[in-house]
Amino acid sequence: MTRMQGIEPFRVMALLERARELEAAGRDIVHLEVGEPDLAAPQAVTEAAQQALADGVGGYTPSTGLPALQTAIADRYQRLHGLTIDPARILITPGASGAFNVLYLVLLEQGGGVLLPDPGYPCHRHFVQLAGGVPMQVPVGPDSHYHLSHEHLIRFWKDDTRAAVVTSPGNPTGTLIEAAAFNQLAAVCRDKGGYLISDEIYTGLSYDGQPPLCALSLAGADPERTVVVDGFSKRWSMTGWRVGWMVVPEALIDPCRRVMQNLFISSATLSQQAALAALDQDDYVAEAGAEYDRRRRYLLAELPRLGLHIPVTPTGAFYVYADTRRLTRDAEGFCQRLLEEAGVALTPGADFGRHRAAHHVRFAYATSMERLQEGVARLADFVGKYGPTPPSP
Amino acid sequence: MTRMQGIEPFRVMALLERARELEAAGRDIVHLEVGEPDLAAPQAVTEAAQQALADGVGGYTPSTGLPALQTAIADRYQRLHGLTIDPARILITPGASGAFNVLYLVLLEQGGGVLLPDPGYPCHRHFVQLAGGVPMQVPVGPDSHYHLSHEHLIRFWKDDTRAAVVTSPGNPTGTLIEAAAFNQLAAVCRDKGGYLISDEIYTGLSYDGQPPLCALSLAGADPERTVVVDGFSKRWSMTGWRVGWMVVPEALIDPCRRVMQNLFISSATLSQQAALAALDQDDYVAEAGAEYDRRRRYLLAELPRLGLHIPVTPTGAFYVYADTRRLTRDAEGFCQRLLEEAGVALTPGADFGRHRAAHHVRFAYATSMERLQEGVARLADFVGKYGPTPPSP
Repeated sequence: MTRMQGIEPFRVMALLERARELEAAGRDIVHLEVGEPDLAAPQAVTEAAQQALADGVGGYTPSTGLPALQTAIADRYQRLHGLTIDPARILITPGASGAFNVLYLVLLEQGGGVLLPDPGYPCHRHFVQLAGGVPMQVPVGPDSHYHLSHEHLIRFWKDDTRAAVVTSPGNPTGTLIEAAAFNQLAAVCRDKGGYLISDEIYTGLSYDGQPPLCALSLAGADPERTVVVDGFSKRWSMTGWRVGWMVVPEALIDPCRRVMQNLFISSATLSQQAALAALDQDDYVAEAGAEYDRRRRYLLAELPRLGLHIPVTPTGAFYVYADTRRLTRDAEGFCQRLLEEAGVALTPGADFGRHRAAHHVRFAYATSMERLQEGVARLADFVGKYGPTPPSP
Repeated sequence: MTRMQGIEPFRVMALLERARELEAAGRDIVHLEVGEPDLAAPQAVTEAAQQALADGVGGYTPSTGLPALQTAIADRYQRLHGLTIDPARILITPGASGAFNVLYLVLLEQGGGVLLPDPGYPCHRHFVQLAGGVPMQVPVGPDSHYHLSHEHLIRFWKDDTRAAVVTSPGNPTGTLIEAAAFNQLAAVCRDKGGYLISDEIYTGLSYDGQPPLCALSLAGADPERTVVVDGFSKRWSMTGWRVGWMVVPEALIDPCRRVMQNLFISSATLSQQAALAALDQDDYVAEAGAEYDRRRRYLLAELPRLGLHIPVTPTGAFYVYADTRRLTRDAEGFCQRLLEEAGVALTPGADFGRHRAAHHVRFAYATSMERLQEGVARLADFVGKYGPTPPSP
């Protein structure tokens, strides 16, 4: 398989395009497919951008980012997690995507595999392939909360395996890895001499009293081989600003910088200046989380009544990963018909891997409660029309 | 050689870091090393950004960019070059760097070589390597104005060569390719079935009556295999905004989009909205060009008096590539001493390749006339101190 054949388009993007066509033709579409916050960014961010514009937007920042932003992120780790991190280890990137791009190019320069959960965020697989590595997709299920476990690592780790990835809260599942399980997994990574890559973009958006967890705090983790990737998009509703970061061990700073100088030169200056104002907006994150939680509880109450089974209660991010088998064993076809006939857009499981993909859909509740209610009402109507419920699996 | 070993750091970045250390210690440094406009972006750009902020910055744009921006760029090709281009062929990227990253990943998915001029912009070589291809650096000199020629292509093209690159006006040389030579080169690309990649980021910043030239206008070029890369950084002094674009043949739209969805998701939204306001700012470009031309003429008059030979008169961009042999045959050491002893930062030829690199330095005149004069005065003093002029080469 060539590199490009391995790069699948997001099915959700095709659905989104079709949804926009329908909208252009006058149809009203409820968007439950896109994992993008509907909330406005913090007011402090807009004000910081206005101030930066008034002061005159500068040119390139250093490739590794605005030094003040690196320092402010380090301060936040100190404040929230009690971690002391040299700001030089914090590399600012164009979105978390930029961080993954650089990281996999550096870690996989001699090839090698990366253990990924299936279902999981598909870009990991694609970045690994673009970097010349091998994505090793491990089927994960409810028993490990859809995360890799230390048993998975012991079972699937090979001589040329370079890293394992944890995204908690997870996409598409919204589930958190348990602290003890995370620590055990980190310890296996350490013992294997591999990297633990912790995607923490949704950390802090968690519910039911789940505390935020940073991989750099894990006793079992090897600090020389732990990389945290994060960004401003989800927690502070700043997708369009394209600012992310990663915390790398000191030995990776120089190789990452060399790649960053070439790939990006630097991240957008105004976006970095604005992002600086987000980092102390804890109240904003708490309020956003409370709003997402309200929507989450609504979906958790409604979806099972429609025949959608939720194997593990999601307690983070803004996703519900639902088992469709009582309704359909062709989730992708179901999503297409639901869009065409009922005007509701969902993401089919196939966007997130192969493991039981045809039996799952992802609901993103990054839209208003009113639209969520409208979507659920349409779905109820569609499911009623859809024919008799097949026998439960 | 591994991928990372092939990625050299920019020497100019190390110099820049040293310059910042010296500045932090109280020294005044004249920066003639960085190819970044000192001018402010057009006022219309700032105003558009302010308006967009007031309206609320949106989320992700489509991966291929804000549709209005694609259309406005297409309109500009129509207006300036009489070219009718489907806006869907215009892909918006995080800087021109983002365009090269995507383009080489797509074109080199089966490997293959890319013909590049040496001296030339080093990121091409690095992007080709990161994509798993082979950079084929062709020594170029004054006779072809430091560009690849059709003779070079005939001589160096191999079975697995995929593309040839022209950057005109060029970096580090500031020289333009002649229209007839460009057309001949394009015709060889066409006959070989390869791609012509035209880096036009400096197009429009040209002097002595040189008209802007777009590869899409060349009679000899194969429209199905010509790619133009461009961006807002240089012409409109918008480096920090990180917006570029490329015009690709229709067949490349889909593979590029798939890579873009994964690499970037999309470019910064506010930056794209602001960039939209730059495209009709022809007066701005003309005024910036007039200012650069004034500085260029100053350097062209002064540098030869200091023993710096300029083999081809640069008529574009904001660079002078000068032969140092009357002063030194170790341009990199010369740059280091010049910085330490005289507080003037230049870029050594080694940043741009290997061909006669030790005998050249690049002057970037993207700084004010006053600073330029100060830099030349210090250089004159340094060269006087530097010892007797060695015999001319």
